[in-house]
Amino acid sequence: MAPSGDIGLIGLAVMVSQNLILNMNDKGFTVVAYNRTVSKVDDFLANEAKGTNVQGAKSIEELVAKLKTPRKIVLLVKAGAAVDQFIQQLEPHLSKGDIIIDGGNSHYPDTSRRVKDLATKGLLFVGSGVSGGEEGARYGPSLMPGGNPDAWPHIKKIFQATAAQVQGDPCCDWVGEDGAGHYVKMVHNGIEYGDMQLIAEAYDILKRGLGLDEPEIAKIFEKWNTGVLDSFLIEITTNILKYNDPVDGRPLVTKILDKAGQKGTGKWTAIAALDAGTAVTLIGEAVFARCLSAVKDERSRASKAISGPKKEVFPLYASKLISYTQGFILMRETAKELGWNLNYAGIARMWRGGCIIKSVFLADITKAYEKTPGLESLLFDDFFNKAVHKAQEGWRRVIAQSVLWGVPTPAFSTALAFFDGYRSEILPANLIQAQRDYFGAHTFRVLPGAENNTVPAGQDIHINWTGRGGNVSASTYIV
Amino acid sequence: MAPSGDIGLIGLAVMVSQNLILNMNDKGFTVVAYNRTVSKVDDFLANEAKGTNVQGAKSIEELVAKLKTPRKIVLLVKAGAAVDQFIQQLEPHLSKGDIIIDGGNSHYPDTSRRVKDLATKGLLFVGSGVSGGEEGARYGPSLMPGGNPDAWPHIKKIFQATAAQVQGDPCCDWVGEDGAGHYVKMVHNGIEYGDMQLIAEAYDILKRGLGLDEPEIAKIFEKWNTGVLDSFLIEITTNILKYNDPVDGRPLVTKILDKAGQKGTGKWTAIAALDAGTAVTLIGEAVFARCLSAVKDERSRASKAISGPKKEVFPLYASKLISYTQGFILMRETAKELGWNLNYAGIARMWRGGCIIKSVFLADITKAYEKTPGLESLLFDDFFNKAVHKAQEGWRRVIAQSVLWGVPTPAFSTALAFFDGYRSEILPANLIQAQRDYFGAHTFRVLPGAENNTVPAGQDIHINWTGRGGNVSASTYIV
Repeated sequence: MAPSGDIGLIGLAVMVSQNLILNMNDKGFTVVAYNRTVSKVDDFLANEAKGTNVQGAKSIEELVAKLKTPRKIVLLVKAGAAVDQFIQQLEPHLSKGDIIIDGGNSHYPDTSRRVKDLATKGLLFVGSGVSGGEEGARYGPSLMPGGNPDAWPHIKKIFQATAAQVQGDPCCDWVGEDGAGHYVKMVHNGIEYGDMQLIAEAYDILKRGLGLDEPEIAKIFEKWNTGVLDSFLIEITTNILKYNDPVDGRPLVTKILDKAGQKGTGKWTAIAALDAGTAVTLIGEAVFARCLSAVKDERSRASKAISGPKKEVFPLYASKLISYTQGFILMRETAKELGWNLNYAGIARMWRGGCIIKSVFLADITKAYEKTPGLESLLFDDFFNKAVHKAQEGWRRVIAQSVLWGVPTPAFSTALAFFDGYRSEILPANLIQAQRDYFGAHTFRVLPGAENNTVPAGQDIHINWTGRGGNVSASTYIV
Repeated sequence: MAPSGDIGLIGLAVMVSQNLILNMNDKGFTVVAYNRTVSKVDDFLANEAKGTNVQGAKSIEELVAKLKTPRKIVLLVKAGAAVDQFIQQLEPHLSKGDIIIDGGNSHYPDTSRRVKDLATKGLLFVGSGVSGGEEGARYGPSLMPGGNPDAWPHIKKIFQATAAQVQGDPCCDWVGEDGAGHYVKMVHNGIEYGDMQLIAEAYDILKRGLGLDEPEIAKIFEKWNTGVLDSFLIEITTNILKYNDPVDGRPLVTKILDKAGQKGTGKWTAIAALDAGTAVTLIGEAVFARCLSAVKDERSRASKAISGPKKEVFPLYASKLISYTQGFILMRETAKELGWNLNYAGIARMWRGGCIIKSVFLADITKAYEKTPGLESLLFDDFFNKAVHKAQEGWRRVIAQSVLWGVPTPAFSTALAFFDGYRSEILPANLIQAQRDYFGAHTFRVLPGAENNTVPAGQDIHINWTGRGGNVSASTYIV
């Protein structure tokens, strides 16, 4: 019997996998499902997948045998060793031109390595970001495939049909070479960290600062969701704030332990930003804010030892704009370094629907990059430039007030600090350079326009500030 | 002829090495100097080291032959491959019990590896932080040795005599096992990044906010240097602000290009903080602030496209206190993870003199950890707790004002945000947990005291917030 499977999927452990299969099935594709613990396959076929065209496989061999060539096999397993193990198990059963797609949250250097390794064996490897959670997987996720470009023509139809559709456009396009798919997904997750922290700070200001309760705050978020902040995260926040514990009718969110978890992609993004030398401070602060939330017991003790101060327009939109500006700057710099050609309009379009950070905001970003493909940063785009000028006064007032109230706003504050730093032609880094030259002979350069005999242009200058010490500069070694 | 060298030193490329040799010579030790480019040795003996007891060596063999056993050889070469190369070159000429000391800025995992490797060959490896720049090296640096503990009795005398002395105590003590010496030096450098950024922000507020000029600001720093902020960095900042270009008599600092350089240790500390899951935000912001300073051209363009707002007690002390609190929290967490026993009072004592971050402040930290060796954080110490309460009002007022003025204060703001977060028994991370459970079934825990049937204690709780979606939680895999 000729194989009839359009695509295979390995890993049924989570709802997301099962929902993705059902989604592909709905779109008319025949999916073959396999799981290491084979009983999961039977369970799935007997329950969630009952009455569908989904086929099961009880072994890797059976999975491969049931797929049309070139075979397309999606791995939805834990990032790390499990991915390599399944690749090893698959390899002997595959033919030249077959395609393995890693749909998990792999770190992008691992994906780059796998693309290269498998290419030497004639196999096409794709690392695809998959975002949207359980619901996205079922009704349309954001899919961000990248890797071996020869794979794209073969998977394009299934991927774009399965993805979320926004105004007729699929939230899926080819991202780029090597690990670019997982890289863009990583940045997406970092931005998601930033968005969530900003929303959490807004909630905190409304609650601790203005003394509103959850139903009142829900109304505010609901209203925000009809304007420029319209987004999935604002929507679910509204729903969360309205959700009352059936036991006593009180808002459930007030009962949730305030220790935010992390799975690592926010941290990876922050480290990538540090490695790239880009000031992606919103994501950095968002990750650090989760770290601080994690030391609950220590904070509880500190709250008793340290007391705070005696006791409109909102900074959420402007801060969010800064966060996306930073995220796109990070991608720009990495693309420059690795020689990738990233399609920024396409990336924004992919994120418009299906994924966690989907929002109307991303349509405006798409427009900005469509209008100016080489746009230096979002703050240079007319639309956003006007928006940030309009938001500026309220943004400053709320942060200043929160600072006086003692309500912590690490992400709001760092967003404004980036904004004020970014729009500073001169920063006090000249003093830092002077200090570094003073104590470490690290040299400095002259400000344009300030050149003279003491401080000539185009040279690494070392000043003997004290008259003691030497004139040797520290070019090769530092203390 | 019996060898007479007390200690050998490899690497004369920089002033620091030469000064360290002259310093050891002054303390009565016979130093043997070697450099890969041998002419450097002759130059040094004929000039800076003329009339001293310093001996030269023209080869590794000659260097080793001139040293008393157990031999002690300090490497002051570029971190990375050069260290491994010199170790390889030295090995065949050394005997069991000989000691190699890496005094460069090696990354601590490399040092841990070298300690273990050489121990299997009977050689004792030490990684020592060396801080204080050219002047510290000449007149007394802060030395932070760690690694193979068997080496310490043999190098203690030379190291403690060479180090800076503060009130009779040497700024040198044994730090701990493996790469602990370089680890503590790395944290030291991270803290230095934070200190410098805070000072730069203070300068910026005084200049752009209050409209003072450099001589006026120098007077303020000079006054600060007589009080709780008394420190090397405040002192050199005063001197820098007073330094006028001989050509036109204008403050030289205003002519320095405002792009702050980096050599990597600040970035390493920020990454170590992210890896350890500790909210070391001051160092993070200080590194990011340097990244932002580096994109000068982009800022210059942005300064034209984006305009700012229409236009006492100082936040420097309180922010600095937060930065050191974070640095010691980072060391505490790493020590916990790696099973190190770090002597916190000793570390603060070592940093009191000789190094870049030396200050009277560090004497108070030493006292705090002497009084309470297991001190959870500096904010729990009576002295600092009182100090921060006293500084709080002015701290808030200045940041609020800077926010309204549009003067960027990334480090001041993040310091206050950490402070307000740290003293928050409840943070809005409950909302983040709710969002994560809503879109990714990541589960949450109940707040203590809020337990009931919906939200039981001690369990990972998943709520079906919408009534759609499934009840499977995402324990093994995330999207």
